Amino acid sequence: MLERLEALRLVDHHCHGVLDRDLGPEEFEALLTESDEAGCDLGGSLWDTQVGFAVRRWCAPVLGLPAHASPGDYLARRTELGADEVNRRFLAAAALDALCVDTGFTPQALLDPPELGKLAGARAYEIVRLERLAEGAVADGASATGFAAEVRSRLTAKARSEDVVGCKSIAAYRAGLELVGERPTEAEVASAAGRLLREAERAPSNQQAGRSAPPRVSDEVLHRFLVWCSVDAGLPVQFHVGYGDADADLRRGDPLLLTSLLQAVAPTGVPVMLLHNYPFHRNAGYLAQVFPNVFVDVGLATHNLGHRAPALIAELLELAPFGKVLYSSDAFGLAELYHLGALLFRRGLAAFLGSGVGDGAWTEEDAIRVGELMASGNAVRAYRLPAVPVAMPAGPAGA
Amino acid sequence: MLERLEALRLVDHHCHGVLDRDLGPEEFEALLTESDEAGCDLGGSLWDTQVGFAVRRWCAPVLGLPAHASPGDYLARRTELGADEVNRRFLAAAALDALCVDTGFTPQALLDPPELGKLAGARAYEIVRLERLAEGAVADGASATGFAAEVRSRLTAKARSEDVVGCKSIAAYRAGLELVGERPTEAEVASAAGRLLREAERAPSNQQAGRSAPPRVSDEVLHRFLVWCSVDAGLPVQFHVGYGDADADLRRGDPLLLTSLLQAVAPTGVPVMLLHNYPFHRNAGYLAQVFPNVFVDVGLATHNLGHRAPALIAELLELAPFGKVLYSSDAFGLAELYHLGALLFRRGLAAFLGSGVGDGAWTEEDAIRVGELMASGNAVRAYRLPAVPVAMPAGPAGA
Amino acid sequence: MLERLEALRLVDHHCHGVLDRDLGPEEFEALLTESDEAGCDLGGSLWDTQVGFAVRRWCAPVLGLPAHASPGDYLARRTELGADEVNRRFLAAAALDALCVDTGFTPQALLDPPELGKLAGARAYEIVRLERLAEGAVADGASATGFAAEVRSRLTAKARSEDVVGCKSIAAYRAGLELVGERPTEAEVASAAGRLLREAERAPSNQQAGRSAPPRVSDEVLHRFLVWCSVDAGLPVQFHVGYGDADADLRRGDPLLLTSLLQAVAPTGVPVMLLHNYPFHRNAGYLAQVFPNVFVDVGLATHNLGHRAPALIAELLELAPFGKVLYSSDAFGLAELYHLGALLFRRGLAAFLGSGVGDGAWTEEDAIRVGELMASGNAVRAYRLPAVPVAMPAGPAGA
Repeated sequence: MLERLEALRLVDHHCHGVLDRDLGPEEFEALLTESDEAGCDLGGSLWDTQVGFAVRRWCAPVLGLPAHASPGDYLARRTELGADEVNRRFLAAAALDALCVDTGFTPQALLDPPELGKLAGARAYEIVRLERLAEGAVADGASATGFAAEVRSRLTAKARSEDVVGCKSIAAYRAGLELVGERPTEAEVASAAGRLLREAERAPSNQQAGRSAPPRVSDEVLHRFLVWCSVDAGLPVQFHVGYGDADADLRRGDPLLLTSLLQAVAPTGVPVMLLHNYPFHRNAGYLAQVFPNVFVDVGLATHNLGHRAPALIAELLELAPFGKVLYSSDAFGLAELYHLGALLFRRGLAAFLGSGVGDGAWTEEDAIRVGELMASGNAVRAYRLPAVPVAMPAGPAGA
Repeated sequence: MLERLEALRLVDHHCHGVLDRDLGPEEFEALLTESDEAGCDLGGSLWDTQVGFAVRRWCAPVLGLPAHASPGDYLARRTELGADEVNRRFLAAAALDALCVDTGFTPQALLDPPELGKLAGARAYEIVRLERLAEGAVADGASATGFAAEVRSRLTAKARSEDVVGCKSIAAYRAGLELVGERPTEAEVASAAGRLLREAERAPSNQQAGRSAPPRVSDEVLHRFLVWCSVDAGLPVQFHVGYGDADADLRRGDPLLLTSLLQAVAPTGVPVMLLHNYPFHRNAGYLAQVFPNVFVDVGLATHNLGHRAPALIAELLELAPFGKVLYSSDAFGLAELYHLGALLFRRGLAAFLGSGVGDGAWTEEDAIRVGELMASGNAVRAYRLPAVPVAMPAGPAGA
Repeated sequence: MLERLEALRLVDHHCHGVLDRDLGPEEFEALLTESDEAGCDLGGSLWDTQVGFAVRRWCAPVLGLPAHASPGDYLARRTELGADEVNRRFLAAAALDALCVDTGFTPQALLDPPELGKLAGARAYEIVRLERLAEGAVADGASATGFAAEVRSRLTAKARSEDVVGCKSIAAYRAGLELVGERPTEAEVASAAGRLLREAERAPSNQQAGRSAPPRVSDEVLHRFLVWCSVDAGLPVQFHVGYGDADADLRRGDPLLLTSLLQAVAPTGVPVMLLHNYPFHRNAGYLAQVFPNVFVDVGLATHNLGHRAPALIAELLELAPFGKVLYSSDAFGLAELYHLGALLFRRGLAAFLGSGVGDGAWTEEDAIRVGELMASGNAVRAYRLPAVPVAMPAGPAGA
């Protein structure tokens, strides 16, 4: 049974592109964790972290090295194989049935969904980042009063594609998750859009150039408006919650801050996905229990916690109904994170379900059934993905 | 020793009535968790939760079914036996010495304390819900200026009964737990009572009928006043803290919000009981350590966490002195929850104390002594319950 | 390998003096936990806590008693040996390489750093408590406008000593940790100092005596000013975070409240040490990952959690890079706490690293390497301590 659980194919419902070029040591280390930089003389190497040790243990063999290869050997081998081959190996090793790619954060060139899907041998969908869509509307000249209609029109166009399966809000990184429930009025949206336009004009870099800076949505009214646009379009809404980089004030990322909005959205039946959640994952589990349309995952944290991922998964599964738990890697930049996230999720889930069988909490049959739900069934249902073809035997060999 | 710990008889210091009629599948599922409804097509069945699996494992055998019976078989057998027999079996299986019943939440007819006590073969006490007592005073015509005296008079009358052993505040569900320490003045209470009267009159449903709606206490001053009334009457005060249904904003249920009030109440020596606490149970354990009159439990969460209850109990017992920990089920509606709460608490406590003995943290003798304190001794002392008669051998067979 | 990890010599980077006289039963019990008092009839003995059982188990043998000696036998033996001998035994048993003593809290006479160092056979450094230094400046007659210069001058003088290696802020106990990032202006500091002077004059005890009460710094501007003075002097800043006595409002001690200040201090490269952190240790681990100059420990909580300390250490090591974790006892008053903190940290760390080796998460070699970092290497680097001489075989026998 453990073997079967550890071989479950996954739907990765929240991930990003990976870099398509070779990486220097500092660049690689900076991408390992949520720190903006590599380690330093003061704080030591970021290889000496749970995720660093997990890469050495689990990723080195995928590149043909012994487990626990040194960071230096690992990076040398990575360069020797080249980015294409490295990406191919890790995406395949992840053993995915489908992936939903957030295309809204591209500080540099990343593989796009079709390229990722091809490497993974899986269907790749797109998640629309709401704030970016809104910022694009403004950058393209939407007026304050025309903003709302322009955003709705762009989102409707996006929603027509069968590749687009949801939206994502990064309110947690901007104005924070304390969003009230009510749909903002058209006047409130126009007024907030006006503020956004004026801020972009006033940005120091623009006063010389006489043109607008890239607008930056960070306004409670606009985040809320965008969430309602997604809900009105029937598209599931993902929220960044909790753990992320130092740009975010983690206090403003507690999922409980969403309570009022969740109460307002619940009657629509549109799914809301709380991403990451660490260290507020117990709060998220509570919300998943009491709101019928709330789903949760512990992506990003899973690979960052490495050897401790099973403890995290067990805490999430205290209150969260097993039909409301999703898998995501939140992989960004490094293809390794696709593999690590998937492997550590499978192993953590198998440990959790297996120990339950071991002491009689549930049967093997139920363990496999709910394991399949969390691996892919819940995501297929919540995003209304097409039925997945019968999978090949999973794991690196089968990919 | 484990056997002895798993057979400890308990004082359930916070519980509710159970339904005295047969239940349909949706109704049963809605009562399993803190969700207001049964599961749905989107989110899946609420039987696929820790508590759902715990019912199938531990409750099915009490009804004469094999462990892990399917939900359908379980409900069919429950109907076949009938509510009376089901209630009798589970209350007896809980193996209680005494129970303290919160009689203040009765959305539908529930068994009352004497009936519960009879089924449990244990003495049943009453916990007075403060907000309901105050709302009753207003509904019966108390004026703004007469409100304080009327509430005190009603509470004094209640306190005269030897069946009444404490009060409960649901501030967490209303204005939140951030209550300042000071006793409100008579003028402040009269003013707040006046607001309450006006709100009840203004309620939309009353404008047509020309009469008052049921008043609803949700005012920091009134919650605080009621707590002080209980303290002045020498009655221990229970607080709903943390985990509950979606009506509550969980952020306002962090026990640390009570710090100021706890500082003010501490000199009186009147016990304060923090109920449930999840996911803030470590915060509650801290308060139990630093305030000599604060007691804690993890009721409600214990059965909702099912197989994970031992982890919860171990976290509570990090800072909470073992003389300050109580048992409660917070069972409501389903008699199963009396049995599950008791069984999971005993097993979790036995696992915690047994593993300590196993690695030399304490002796068997001490483990049994502090186990007895947490099972019943602390509650007997804090509520000044009469000495409990020598118990029969515990467990289902002895009940 | 476990033996080697359990024998690591430590740098205790945050501790206090111990009492140099025999202690009565109540006094001893009051010093065991963060409660201000011994246990009481209502709440039971504070020996029935994790730390109480840890003393009986681990400290009794150091005094020549069997493990699990009763509290009465333990205290009798302690008195029989006398405070000097008791202090000598426990400080030696801690097996320290160095200790950094916060000398700013001395409600009664305590051993000073040189005396502690002598007993421990280790170099003792001093940590300057910022608020006390500022209060001293005011008590000695600094004017509102002269306050800033006087504080800087005193701190500069302190920093000249090679025994002084850092400062400590107790903002968490006073105005709370929500400190904004910006350096306050001279005018803001003078204004805040003026308020402090007026408060001291107005204090009731002074109106009769016609003189100033001891000033008490509790002002966001002043805490922040003091932190920047330490940063400007290049001295690492320790913050009390989380767990402490009931004087502190624990809500104001969440390390996430420091986010803005940490963002502002990060570019200076001056280390910031987050002390204790429980129950916010996961939040602290996050900050240690995303800020290159932030270090964390779980002192105070380690001995208070006793048998549960390994769970705490494992949670800290989820996100905190292993190069950013420090050891501290936060021992105060009782010499036992030096021994307990050290022993439980070593054992918890060994359990964590050993279980990782056991299931292949890292190699023995890496486990020992990062174990040495957390035991002493990180502290030596962050505080720029002189290289430690090759240590004698550690543990009680080697001290």
